[in-house]
Amino acid sequence: TQENLLLAAAYVSDAQYNRNVPFETSPRAIRLYYFYNHWTMQVAIYFFICVDLSLALFEEPALFPLPFLATSLAEVLCLTAFFGRLVHFAKVTPQMVFWKDTKNICIMVTIVLTLIDLIIYGSLEAVNVHSVRWSRVLRPVFLINFPESRQIRRTFRSIRNTLPDILYVFLLFMFSVLIFSLMALKLFGDRGLKTVEGLPYFTNILDIVFELYVLVTTANSPDVMMPAYNFNWWYCLYFITYTIINTYIFMSVFLAVVYNNYRKHLKNEIRKLAYLKRHKMIEAFNILKVKVGTEFVVMEAQWRRLAKVVAPHISGPHLELLLRISDEGQKGHVDKVNFLRLADLLNIQVVTINIRRHPLEDWMPRVYRSSASLLVQRMVQHRIFVWVYDVIILINAIFIALDERNPFISYAEWLFLSLYIIEILLKLYTYEPRAYFDRRQFWNWFDTLIIIAALVATVANTTIQSARKYNSQQILDIVLILRILRLLRIIVSIQRFRVIVTTLINIGPTILTFGGLVLVDVLSLLLLAGGFALVTHQAAKLYFIGFHIVVVILIVNIFIAFILEAFFVAY
Amino acid sequence: TQENLLLAAAYVSDAQYNRNVPFETSPRAIRLYYFYNHWTMQVAIYFFICVDLSLALFEEPALFPLPFLATSLAEVLCLTAFFGRLVHFAKVTPQMVFWKDTKNICIMVTIVLTLIDLIIYGSLEAVNVHSVRWSRVLRPVFLINFPESRQIRRTFRSIRNTLPDILYVFLLFMFSVLIFSLMALKLFGDRGLKTVEGLPYFTNILDIVFELYVLVTTANSPDVMMPAYNFNWWYCLYFITYTIINTYIFMSVFLAVVYNNYRKHLKNEIRKLAYLKRHKMIEAFNILKVKVGTEFVVMEAQWRRLAKVVAPHISGPHLELLLRISDEGQKGHVDKVNFLRLADLLNIQVVTINIRRHPLEDWMPRVYRSSASLLVQRMVQHRIFVWVYDVIILINAIFIALDERNPFISYAEWLFLSLYIIEILLKLYTYEPRAYFDRRQFWNWFDTLIIIAALVATVANTTIQSARKYNSQQILDIVLILRILRLLRIIVSIQRFRVIVTTLINIGPTILTFGGLVLVDVLSLLLLAGGFALVTHQAAKLYFIGFHIVVVILIVNIFIAFILEAFFVAY
Ligand code: NA
Repeated sequence: TQENLLLAAAYVSDAQYNRNVPFETSPRAIRLYYFYNHWTMQVAIYFFICVDLSLALFEEPALFPLPFLATSLAEVLCLTAFFGRLVHFAKVTPQMVFWKDTKNICIMVTIVLTLIDLIIYGSLEAVNVHSVRWSRVLRPVFLINFPESRQIRRTFRSIRNTLPDILYVFLLFMFSVLIFSLMALKLFGDRGLKTVEGLPYFTNILDIVFELYVLVTTANSPDVMMPAYNFNWWYCLYFITYTIINTYIFMSVFLAVVYNNYRKHLKNEIRKLAYLKRHKMIEAFNILKVKVGTEFVVMEAQWRRLAKVVAPHISGPHLELLLRISDEGQKGHVDKVNFLRLADLLNIQVVTINIRRHPLEDWMPRVYRSSASLLVQRMVQHRIFVWVYDVIILINAIFIALDERNPFISYAEWLFLSLYIIEILLKLYTYEPRAYFDRRQFWNWFDTLIIIAALVATVANTTIQSARKYNSQQILDIVLILRILRLLRIIVSIQRFRVIVTTLINIGPTILTFGGLVLVDVLSLLLLAGGFALVTHQAAKLYFIGFHIVVVILIVNIFIAFILEAFFVAY
Repeated sequence: TQENLLLAAAYVSDAQYNRNVPFETSPRAIRLYYFYNHWTMQVAIYFFICVDLSLALFEEPALFPLPFLATSLAEVLCLTAFFGRLVHFAKVTPQMVFWKDTKNICIMVTIVLTLIDLIIYGSLEAVNVHSVRWSRVLRPVFLINFPESRQIRRTFRSIRNTLPDILYVFLLFMFSVLIFSLMALKLFGDRGLKTVEGLPYFTNILDIVFELYVLVTTANSPDVMMPAYNFNWWYCLYFITYTIINTYIFMSVFLAVVYNNYRKHLKNEIRKLAYLKRHKMIEAFNILKVKVGTEFVVMEAQWRRLAKVVAPHISGPHLELLLRISDEGQKGHVDKVNFLRLADLLNIQVVTINIRRHPLEDWMPRVYRSSASLLVQRMVQHRIFVWVYDVIILINAIFIALDERNPFISYAEWLFLSLYIIEILLKLYTYEPRAYFDRRQFWNWFDTLIIIAALVATVANTTIQSARKYNSQQILDIVLILRILRLLRIIVSIQRFRVIVTTLINIGPTILTFGGLVLVDVLSLLLLAGGFALVTHQAAKLYFIGFHIVVVILIVNIFIAFILEAFFVAY
């Protein structure tokens, strides 16, 4: 039946996208589940999460101050969207599962707490009493707890699992810093040395611990050593030993422990995902199976209908290809082993090369196929064409470095821009435009976007310079940066550069989410600790150490672990 | 025959220690080869290499200046030793192989060049003309090219294989730095900003490239950004972007490429070593095999004699154990498969626990087994004993941190020292001394050495303070450091700390050779470039960049790769 087909398709789709949401199997719940997974709903929820997180930019202490009414309205809107999403989820998933999931409870509690905070803050504001919007630190809860953020939660789990191992290395590291601090106190404390600012040098053990901790980050690197060097050059041995042990060895050990755990964890996660995927595909098979001879199979017609529901935009030839792979013996049905592979088959990107004729060839075949036109096309396809434009970019770079108040150089700008536009036009003349701008042709898009940015920049620059009245510094700066960014085109020409950048771009989304999360956390921390740190100098130091532990030891190392792993796979 | 046995033993020994020296099979050559591989010869050659390398400390510009005659005599002595070792090697290895090996040619050429340089320099010195001892940069050639330095050459090969991949990443990195430099020139160059020293800020493209390159190391981290921040806070976006891309992403990519290559290379090396080991064991088997029934085997008596030649200090029970493993069926002979395992079997450290009686129990059994004595022994074995001494160490740390001119604290020193000596005496009373000081009981040695160092330090300190006349600052500093180092004993008590430190110590020798090599190279570079860098400011900058490329990008990353790999294996 159609209901069974939809249910099976939901299982296959979950297997394909590694979703792990238990849903009710009533027809109404399945339909709601399809709607729940629709990309518009996902985009909407991410949009509201972004709005909610970016509110920090508009609230005091704000980069762009907005009145409380505006930000609180936006926040209520976001909370409504989150609540709606949660209600939608509650109708999809079994009641028992919903209330047992701490993620849902977290979201609900956060919504209620935020509303209470909003009401209190608003009321106090109304009678001109200033208070603190403490619920702002809770906002990342939404980012982390919605089912869409599987990857982020996986990373957090990974961090949590790493903590015990990290803790012991950290304790040993702090022990080492303490030993070196004691040495510094004994070696330098009684010598009456002075820092550059004329303060006593290394006389207080707590100050020494802090300075040596900061030395690990090399933030105070030459300054903190100078009084000792000036007293006796031999003390460089102390600082060299310190740097080797605490900067190089300990920081490497931190990385080793984090990376080690990350890989172990990743292996477990992949195993778990494979198990869940297989489990879901078996569920789907059991719904659709019929008995043919002695074995259970899925009939070809049923399989086709299922594939159409799971991947509505799949092309006819692609579907036939998948069927031919799945029904090896052309027996008119797909057996269990081949059926279980469907989710993976759908994930394989098949590059369908459509050798289409150039539109110009249809419109004016005689002109397009004339010998002059063919010569132009061969020229554009030749590697010398690429080299000529590489040289042009280099000359452009030199011109940018030169003084632009020289009118000759200012005119040259227009020459370069024309050359770039001619290049893109020639390419569109030679290559079929739809193939050139295919979704997978990342580097063509990159190239074209940079040229368009250059065009916009140069036009904007000229407009500003001729208008003279509206000479905004920020717009001028952006124009300058866009003009320089066009030099990035050189990356496109060098194969090895493209490999490196492609690898980095593939892990880009993960890094961006991760970086965004860190930024939000850091901003929250800064806001919370900022006032506190101003009160006492000692608190500011503790704050620096805490910040360093979280950011450098954990996050940067996990970031490096990401990149290490990505390069193992890609390079 | 005895000759055949010696030849087979040489093959087994080479397989055991992963040596790969082709040697002649004549009886005389084999005997010379045994002598060549003797540990005294190895120690001697390392000693002369160390002397040769450390000459840099005594030659101008010197830390401890010595007359030219002394250093040149020492150098000639070293060269003689190297030449002798080479002649010895030439008598062991076939003529053809010897002259084809570039390592030998390298050593010979370096000896000749060094002698020429010594003669020229000496003659010029005699007529009071100062010249440059250019052959000093050739000294690491000896360290690298003797067959003993397989591990170092392996690392160098690994570095050389990494270079092409590193090069492309480096070019892309420099391209990125250049793009950012152009941006900085355009954004800040025309604003008339000044640095803290009042110099023009970011006006020259070459200066900018250098400053931004240094920024990657964070050496000039806050200073270089301040003028831009002071002008407009928004420019922090520029520096944040720069740091994320060039410090975090590119430095991680460098590490990823180096580590990736290192692992690939390591896998190949291990495969090659396994192949060579098997090949050598087959050679040995072919020499000793006799036919029993249908298969070739080595007779038990022959096998015993072979094992005795390869491992002369092996104990009787250990040898019987190995034989029982190798001759599974107790058939009186060892078959080929089991014979090939011999080299690996000899490498396995068998912990033979000799439950010996305490010497005191033999000398005065009644006293040692009295109830009071047994109580003491149980007390020492109890974990509370460890905890009590941990607390004592902590109190000691606090006392060290306090002002030692207070006489009470100065007396406390003696108290702590007595407590530590009592501890070690109690342990020696409880545990069998030979078992306690076994070669493999690293932590007991560590503990005892630290206490002895503490004793020496405190006694020396008191002697100096009472003598008053000879109050050398350097000796006082060393005493202070030794007194603080005794706090390291706390590591022994915490199991997890010991695991981390053991892992680090296991890779210690490799890191030390590696670090020594780097130090020598760096010193040679410094000496060569030092004078050159003083001439022009631009040359100094290039020098800094070259130094950073070699040290940070290559060496530090390979160092981190070592540690990452060691922790994968050990943790
Ligand atoms: Na710094």
